[in-house]
Amino acid sequence: MLKNYERPFKEQPKGRKASPLLKAVSPHDNKVLASIGEAINRSGLKDGMTISFHHHFRNGDYILNNIVKIIDELGFKNITLAPSSLSTVNSEIIPYIENGTITKIHTSGVRGKLAEAISNGALEEPVMIRSHGGRARAIESGDIKIHVAFLGAPSCDEYGNASGKGSHTTCGSLGYAKVDAKHADCVIIITDDLVPYPNMPASIFQTDVDYVVKIDEIGDPMGIASGATRYTKNPKELLIAKRASEVIKNSGYFKDGFSFQTGSGGISLAVARFLKEYMKESDIRAKFALGGITKPMVEMHEERYIENLFDVQTFDLAACESILKNEKHYEIDASQYANPHNKGCVANKLDIVILSALEIDKDFNVNVITGSDGVIMGASGGHCDTAAGSKMSVIVAPLIRGRIPTVVDKVNTIITPGETVDVLVTDRGVVVNPNRTDLIERLKNASINLVTMEYLKDEAQKLVGKPKEIEYDDKIVALVEYRDGTIIDVIKKVK
Amino acid sequence: MLKNYERPFKEQPKGRKASPLLKAVSPHDNKVLASIGEAINRSGLKDGMTISFHHHFRNGDYILNNIVKIIDELGFKNITLAPSSLSTVNSEIIPYIENGTITKIHTSGVRGKLAEAISNGALEEPVMIRSHGGRARAIESGDIKIHVAFLGAPSCDEYGNASGKGSHTTCGSLGYAKVDAKHADCVIIITDDLVPYPNMPASIFQTDVDYVVKIDEIGDPMGIASGATRYTKNPKELLIAKRASEVIKNSGYFKDGFSFQTGSGGISLAVARFLKEYMKESDIRAKFALGGITKPMVEMHEERYIENLFDVQTFDLAACESILKNEKHYEIDASQYANPHNKGCVANKLDIVILSALEIDKDFNVNVITGSDGVIMGASGGHCDTAAGSKMSVIVAPLIRGRIPTVVDKVNTIITPGETVDVLVTDRGVVVNPNRTDLIERLKNASINLVTMEYLKDEAQKLVGKPKEIEYDDKIVALVEYRDGTIIDVIKKVK
Repeated sequence: MLKNYERPFKEQPKGRKASPLLKAVSPHDNKVLASIGEAINRSGLKDGMTISFHHHFRNGDYILNNIVKIIDELGFKNITLAPSSLSTVNSEIIPYIENGTITKIHTSGVRGKLAEAISNGALEEPVMIRSHGGRARAIESGDIKIHVAFLGAPSCDEYGNASGKGSHTTCGSLGYAKVDAKHADCVIIITDDLVPYPNMPASIFQTDVDYVVKIDEIGDPMGIASGATRYTKNPKELLIAKRASEVIKNSGYFKDGFSFQTGSGGISLAVARFLKEYMKESDIRAKFALGGITKPMVEMHEERYIENLFDVQTFDLAACESILKNEKHYEIDASQYANPHNKGCVANKLDIVILSALEIDKDFNVNVITGSDGVIMGASGGHCDTAAGSKMSVIVAPLIRGRIPTVVDKVNTIITPGETVDVLVTDRGVVVNPNRTDLIERLKNASINLVTMEYLKDEAQKLVGKPKEIEYDDKIVALVEYRDGTIIDVIKKVK
Repeated sequence: MLKNYERPFKEQPKGRKASPLLKAVSPHDNKVLASIGEAINRSGLKDGMTISFHHHFRNGDYILNNIVKIIDELGFKNITLAPSSLSTVNSEIIPYIENGTITKIHTSGVRGKLAEAISNGALEEPVMIRSHGGRARAIESGDIKIHVAFLGAPSCDEYGNASGKGSHTTCGSLGYAKVDAKHADCVIIITDDLVPYPNMPASIFQTDVDYVVKIDEIGDPMGIASGATRYTKNPKELLIAKRASEVIKNSGYFKDGFSFQTGSGGISLAVARFLKEYMKESDIRAKFALGGITKPMVEMHEERYIENLFDVQTFDLAACESILKNEKHYEIDASQYANPHNKGCVANKLDIVILSALEIDKDFNVNVITGSDGVIMGASGGHCDTAAGSKMSVIVAPLIRGRIPTVVDKVNTIITPGETVDVLVTDRGVVVNPNRTDLIERLKNASINLVTMEYLKDEAQKLVGKPKEIEYDDKIVALVEYRDGTIIDVIKKVK
């Protein structure tokens, strides 16, 4: 039964943690199987069951498409797909939605042609959109019951010890996959690098793994770990970043031992760069940084500006190298990262998070999933998780993008509720949530000029006019679940 | 319902893994409580519930006695005690058994006055004796349902990240405690070193911890981590060790990439020393060593004779230092170590284990728990787990100890069934289990002189006479559970 969202920390979990089937593997048992087909056969997969994947290989992933194709060939129908997220590369599965192999999807987001197909009503049942913390919550509560997890790993030994480091590819943290490995009834590791036992340190340990299959290629190494993250040179983005870092500096949270998370977007990374300068000047050091970890975070860690890195997802090659060599760069799973219904995730200990937005409205609600045409084009990610967990959430965004305003009357889709958003920094001004009188006072004392949402909305309209209303059909193509399991919004079919 | 033991790998687990209550801790919640009394109060502890502890602090532990005392003061009755093991130091709890505060005990073993009290019928209900792997199985299957786990930690932060390293004390691996932390409904960390967040690397992570209590002293540092392990100089023990290492060398399992476990007894450690010499001569290296880790293992690891150390329990100061500094010295939990009902524990990958015995009989059954007077004086430990998991189990023991024979007609108590015991090495000869015709052939080819159990038993009797029958009462004071959950033996009240 679906429940409506009310407020951030109202919903409490009930009952016991979900758990997988017990199974004994004896010393004489062999886990390595000759093919994915054999593994599916042994897994007990049946029509109507749920299968899961992780998105640590990003747009380089070959696993998900490949498995769905094999499952179709084997004649399965009515399968629920529950990956941690979907990328453009997964548009290859559209035919298997059309032929009824896949009839339901849970994901953090979806992009490209698959997203368009979903927004155009390709699935009968609405897609369930969840945040990274919300997915971990759903798995731990049993809201998502994974029957078979197909988990790609850059290396694995014959007993299932799986690592994000391999000789062909590397993806760093396996933070999303770790949750699936703990809860799926059957866990299959798929690797292109079968190494001698024991493959340690292992992100997924042998005690949770049923089968191991070696294939030729788990993905495109270039797509899995991209090269260096580049800093933005866009003057508007740099202006926003500079302002955001001034807000942070004067927020009261910028002090020795603070903690923060930045996204992987250009503005966020530029904020980190400005912060580093302030940290240098004021001899302030961060106790930890959290999140998807990128090269700029690694540099700050190696230069001792950040003591600990908590890493649920490793974004680039520099970060992949760091998690192997830097002993205070820690892999955490998605539940440890941001699940609101465990005994205290790391996001709860965040002081500051810097987040992006496609749209933000006068109630500070943020949309990061649907475009100005109402079509799905993004992912929930850790947005609402870290906004809720942190002491101060800062949204950074340009007032307009091309002819599209960011500040609007009402966002197309709420991913993050306004109650958990504290500051908006744009190129045309800074707005603080009126609930945060403490912050308003501190920023005013620091002579930071504050404006209102109304002002920014009017400014945007002056520049690009009032945005045209999107025409939707009545059909609901996606439900947006808040991290606590309540429904915060729906996405409708575009006309 | 109790089931009788049949054979090592017959019993299969059923149903789903047991799991703890779900609970949400929000960013504004505080886990640090002022006293153990307050933590007990908040834990929801009620009469009849089960509480757990770990024995990583060994005979230096202050936690268990202290908590039982407080629980008695608070007026609780009919509490079940489920520590990973009990030591001589825990004899302090006898009054709380006598007054009905504690009415049931699950443990791996018990020593000293408490053991004597139990053997003399202090408890109405039989004590349940389990191996380390068997305890993990029982917790994961729900056979032991822990309501409140009181887990001492040498350091912890305010959010529950607990480590075996502290500024006052250090215990290394928290391998037994990790299982309790994952399954208890309420997890309380008790520390004497409350450190800044985040206390990483953490053996027990914040997401599993309800409360943190700081006390003055969690234990006696000298009892928690004892100094260097000493090699035996006893010529009889050295002779046995030399023979055992010759058996291993010629067993077919001694080859590059092999794996082994030794106990912490004098003979076992001497075996490791001889093995090292053979490894040097033959340019053979071990892939991993498992178990309670001791200084000799650490030395072999640091000298590159052993590539990886898997550590469920750290036995001495050298090993405590090693687990902190050597990156291939890995902490594992008791389920990963030896649970027969998960998807494959590390014990399953063991080639060779060297184990001790108080008694061994003509069917190769081994007793490591009751003395020649029938009184409990030891612990099940990992004995039956590694005997079953390994490809070859070697028992090392002197033929007689003082006036007490080791080789007997029938052991007082079966901890490890003869089907899983391959070789017995004594100072008076080597016996191979007749089932192991492969081993017999290989050892004969290597000109190792083999004798029979009958011969050894007769030799022992010639020296010390036939042992007097122990007089038992009808009352059962302890049930011995095999690692798979079946009952392999009972211990009766001594007269």
